Amino acid sequence: MLSKTQIKYIRSLTQQKYRKEHQAFIAEGDKIAKEWLMSDQVIEFVVATDDWLAQNHELVNKHSKATIINIKSTELDRVTALKTPNQVLLVVKIPDVQTVLPKDGWVIGLSTIQDPGNMGTIIRIADWFGVKNIVCSADCVDQYNPKVIQSAMGGHLRVQVHVQELPTFLESTDLSVYAATLGGENIHKISAGNKGIILIGNESKGLSDELIALASHQVTIPKGGGAESLNAAVSTGILTALLTQR
Amino acid sequence: MLSKTQIKYIRSLTQQKYRKEHQAFIAEGDKIAKEWLMSDQVIEFVVATDDWLAQNHELVNKHSKATIINIKSTELDRVTALKTPNQVLLVVKIPDVQTVLPKDGWVIGLSTIQDPGNMGTIIRIADWFGVKNIVCSADCVDQYNPKVIQSAMGGHLRVQVHVQELPTFLESTDLSVYAATLGGENIHKISAGNKGIILIGNESKGLSDELIALASHQVTIPKGGGAESLNAAVSTGILTALLTQR
Repeated sequence: MLSKTQIKYIRSLTQQKYRKEHQAFIAEGDKIAKEWLMSDQVIEFVVATDDWLAQNHELVNKHSKATIINIKSTELDRVTALKTPNQVLLVVKIPDVQTVLPKDGWVIGLSTIQDPGNMGTIIRIADWFGVKNIVCSADCVDQYNPKVIQSAMGGHLRVQVHVQELPTFLESTDLSVYAATLGGENIHKISAGNKGIILIGNESKGLSDELIALASHQVTIPKGGGAESLNAAVSTGILTALLTQR
Repeated sequence: MLSKTQIKYIRSLTQQKYRKEHQAFIAEGDKIAKEWLMSDQVIEFVVATDDWLAQNHELVNKHSKATIINIKSTELDRVTALKTPNQVLLVVKIPDVQTVLPKDGWVIGLSTIQDPGNMGTIIRIADWFGVKNIVCSADCVDQYNPKVIQSAMGGHLRVQVHVQELPTFLESTDLSVYAATLGGENIHKISAGNKGIILIGNESKGLSDELIALASHQVTIPKGGGAESLNAAVSTGILTALLTQR
């Protein structure tokens, strides 16, 4: 059973300021919990039903320092950030690593991405294509937001998400910068080689003029219909497929 | 001001059975409301703040049969399906048209897509690339779900979404069928011409063996990293860009 203090603590982690204070975040659901338990990340709590614990005791036992709490699935309702609560919730410590900004390979740069679903989906895209680094402006949604964790599907374990002002990063790098805009070169006609930065802007405002000025190329997915724009995560997926896989 | 009966009616439209009964749905938010008001679709209610109505009276006046209701933005909280309520909400009649299944051009086929955000994003993708038809299995999320309307960004006005059992549709068509699977041909190496069906499966289970057996090609976005899969809407976007634009 969860104590009142534990409930309060877990619930607090849905807010960024408490995640920062406690250096911890929530990872929920069978698939995502297993990804984290299989990793060597520090797990603080495993909150799960008896059934789930019985089926996964080997995985859980690997984490000898984790506090294990049996609950009824109805009890999970009290701490979940999900609409349909699952059988398991982890509290995971945020890894204490000095991040080193990437100097080579493919990088996704994100300016002011606000929607947690988009941010998580972009981490999952990077994870699929083997892009190991994402550099976010400080006003992007926090990578440890529960909905980002949900939609990234474990991508955090293989993709490093750095927070850094983008002008500083772009001015310091030798990598070519491919900025996604509505009036750039046809992405299908670009041969990019094996490294560079794919730069994606805010869901409604796109990229600022300042950032566009720092790009080596503006690139566009040609439009054949009536929509004003594509979703930011979908654009990232298409640009990443076309730039990194040819 | 909204009457109790109006509040009850509008709220009921968040549920599919009432949308079906009343043949009406909700379209919310400045951008989306304007898209529908610019169209010739039948608008039943325009519920908006004074400010919004003042700024958009020409658009609203085009719809002489619509009931216009002034409200305070706090009042919109009582009927909105959004977390951050907007200044305007429309009730739109579902168009009474016999849909004719597409026989030519590009078509997106969707099997058991459950997430309304994915469904809406796929309608928006079709709208961007000029794919005029989507054929959904009956167990896909309803195209008039408020979250589908939100994420499609007006795409419903330019993309026809048909509901039809997919085996029946695939057996009756001459179009080539490109089924998205994890073990198919590299999508970058396929030249598809100017027509065909892009077939996408459920978010967690993918496509059934029955549907795969009806496809002319299995196609795959090559994986370079550790993720198990890509989001269904992102996959649809990448496959649509690669199949329809080369």
